[in-house]
Amino acid sequence: MALIVQKYGGSSLETAERIRAVAKRVVETRKAGNDVVVVCSAMGDTTDELLDLAAQVNPTPPPREMDMLLSAGERISNSLVAMAVASHGVDARSFTGSQAGVITTERHGNARIIEVTPGRVKEAIDAGKVAIVAGFQGVNRDSKDVTTLGRGGSDTTAVALAAALGADVCEIYSDVDGVYSADPRIVPDAKKLDKLCFEEMLELAASGSKILVLRSVEYARAFNVPMRVRSSYSNDPGTLVTGAMEDIPMEEAVLAGVATDDSEAKITVSGIPDVPGEAAKLFRVLADAEINIDMVLQNPSSLHDNITDITFTLPKADGPRGLEALRELAQTEGWGDIAYNDKIAKVTLVGAGMKSHPGVTADFTQALRDNGINIGMMNTSEIRITAVIEQEKMEDAARAIHEKFNLGGGEAAVVYAGTGR
Amino acid sequence: MALIVQKYGGSSLETAERIRAVAKRVVETRKAGNDVVVVCSAMGDTTDELLDLAAQVNPTPPPREMDMLLSAGERISNSLVAMAVASHGVDARSFTGSQAGVITTERHGNARIIEVTPGRVKEAIDAGKVAIVAGFQGVNRDSKDVTTLGRGGSDTTAVALAAALGADVCEIYSDVDGVYSADPRIVPDAKKLDKLCFEEMLELAASGSKILVLRSVEYARAFNVPMRVRSSYSNDPGTLVTGAMEDIPMEEAVLAGVATDDSEAKITVSGIPDVPGEAAKLFRVLADAEINIDMVLQNPSSLHDNITDITFTLPKADGPRGLEALRELAQTEGWGDIAYNDKIAKVTLVGAGMKSHPGVTADFTQALRDNGINIGMMNTSEIRITAVIEQEKMEDAARAIHEKFNLGGGEAAVVYAGTGR
Repeated sequence: MALIVQKYGGSSLETAERIRAVAKRVVETRKAGNDVVVVCSAMGDTTDELLDLAAQVNPTPPPREMDMLLSAGERISNSLVAMAVASHGVDARSFTGSQAGVITTERHGNARIIEVTPGRVKEAIDAGKVAIVAGFQGVNRDSKDVTTLGRGGSDTTAVALAAALGADVCEIYSDVDGVYSADPRIVPDAKKLDKLCFEEMLELAASGSKILVLRSVEYARAFNVPMRVRSSYSNDPGTLVTGAMEDIPMEEAVLAGVATDDSEAKITVSGIPDVPGEAAKLFRVLADAEINIDMVLQNPSSLHDNITDITFTLPKADGPRGLEALRELAQTEGWGDIAYNDKIAKVTLVGAGMKSHPGVTADFTQALRDNGINIGMMNTSEIRITAVIEQEKMEDAARAIHEKFNLGGGEAAVVYAGTGR
Repeated sequence: MALIVQKYGGSSLETAERIRAVAKRVVETRKAGNDVVVVCSAMGDTTDELLDLAAQVNPTPPPREMDMLLSAGERISNSLVAMAVASHGVDARSFTGSQAGVITTERHGNARIIEVTPGRVKEAIDAGKVAIVAGFQGVNRDSKDVTTLGRGGSDTTAVALAAALGADVCEIYSDVDGVYSADPRIVPDAKKLDKLCFEEMLELAASGSKILVLRSVEYARAFNVPMRVRSSYSNDPGTLVTGAMEDIPMEEAVLAGVATDDSEAKITVSGIPDVPGEAAKLFRVLADAEINIDMVLQNPSSLHDNITDITFTLPKADGPRGLEALRELAQTEGWGDIAYNDKIAKVTLVGAGMKSHPGVTADFTQALRDNGINIGMMNTSEIRITAVIEQEKMEDAARAIHEKFNLGGGEAAVVYAGTGR
């Protein structure tokens, strides 16, 4: 008898009919002899409707009240799922984040989970009940105020709860049936992956894959909670995300897939004195504006001694704000020009196999070159290669790399030894 | 500086626009130098929408989950009101029933308040904030489960909170601007009453007046919390409900008003042996079926010794169930016929003045007789006279009594000494 945590997203709970379908799956899992804990997001558009109401009464609503408002959404979906499960004669009990012991930091709208003390959830399971826990929400330990966890919060609730309960697996249900070797809308022969290691999933999530939120994967890796990505509309076993890179048989050196991301822009600040502390000034200004930067490249100028350029990427949405802050700084410091380009994209190849198999970078760059795609910036980790390219070439690039490494179709994507990298 | 509890019903909170209007009133009350605690129901149709969703996933939803679901409604309205108040620069904080310390019995869907320990509400007030408390909901002390209070729950929350905080007044806002001497839809010259005592309000509420729920008035009387019935659409001071009958100057012996109620039916069981214990059997059967009975009349038969008839009224909705239970009993016991009449109505005159002024009953019956209205049953308390009449004569009866006692218009409704009663 396993303990299974199942997380269902808002689109899986959009209507009463879908809620009944979710309940049916929960009941089947329970009747197969498993203990089941269910984590639900708010129904379909609930959150948007509540945000809209809030905007109508106060354009800048206090964050504490916003959390009080939004957390009502999961309360509704969760109690409905509990009722639907009960209609099958299976005892179910819904819990708010607070009741389930999800203790968070104080930061309303984007709280972090500090710990989970799921005493009531455990009691319910021990009594043979299905426990339904509201995702996305928790309670601050000191003020006892309701908090929400921000983007990907429900996935994180599910993983944190699975960790605290020592669950055998945390199943994340959505409208796709697993993790693919590329976005199938871009690469038609993309292949569903049976298994990935946490590191690969982390790199994919950080590189633009939307299937799992980085934060929940980080949590799963830290507490070694196996995750399974599944569709709520099929019985496909989906993709298992588990274990460490070391578990992967090196002789097979599988590459996981290609991720794409066109949500970032690129800023280049030139004419910065190449002395210690100058780059820090730049990044401090951006940090103070709460702007997350992604890739960074520093090029000593070939024309002038002791002068350098710094290029980095940041979310397009933060572009104008970032530019403004930097223009002020550049003027004060007497730096050179600032260039902004929001017509870029990132294309990334991820795979634990990369580590022990040289030649991957060579093949990667060759695939782009063969398709006439110029690389603007490049950046690698042990199991990832990322290139910044022109935005309009993004899909071509993904297809080229996917094909070069033979990631598609029914075949296993094995990387054979090459040279270089 | 007074402490004022204000309760707003669902229709006052139906849209974002109305929520802003409520917030404006709250802010004005606060800026006038008062401490303000606001109790809100769920927005307009929210509860019906949630009930509808529940019915779609489970026709007989577990009561615990129903409470979890419905309590989301006040969470939404309360946080929106808090946001709207905050938009005026006045600090506001919303609390769930549980956070506000509303401790109840375990009975889901119809819990009773055991006590209110409003520590967090008090803290918020002491810090100069407006506290917004979710009506209609509480938490069970033992199981820590969310409960709802059933019909009139938000009014009861407001009064209970006012009692626990020692508030100066509990204002109940709705879409009418006070308590009237009769339903103005039936009696066009009905007069708004400036003041009523608790006992009068209790009798009116028990006799069909919808303006305040009996339960909240009982609570207010028990803890001596002055209530004020007001409209959320005007600045009219409304009607004050306060004090005991003894406070009323007897020389003026004011009558309060006329109430009507056509929601009941009448059952007569005949041929019951007139020996101790027989009536008890009848009422036990009804109690076991959880049917509340109202007026009761027992007539010894003039034709047969030791045989009696029992007539009583009960909610129409419970009529068929009551009949079924009684037919079974009557057969077992060998009693006589059972008659059922759901074309009846009650008309009631209420006034503390009645007590010390005889002749009221005589005038009451004469008013009905003069209008050709036959009295089926009659029942009195110290400050109330109720007659059961034909349903189709209800409105005529209300107008006749209202006029007879001169309750309308701009004049005070004074009862002069008469004879009889």
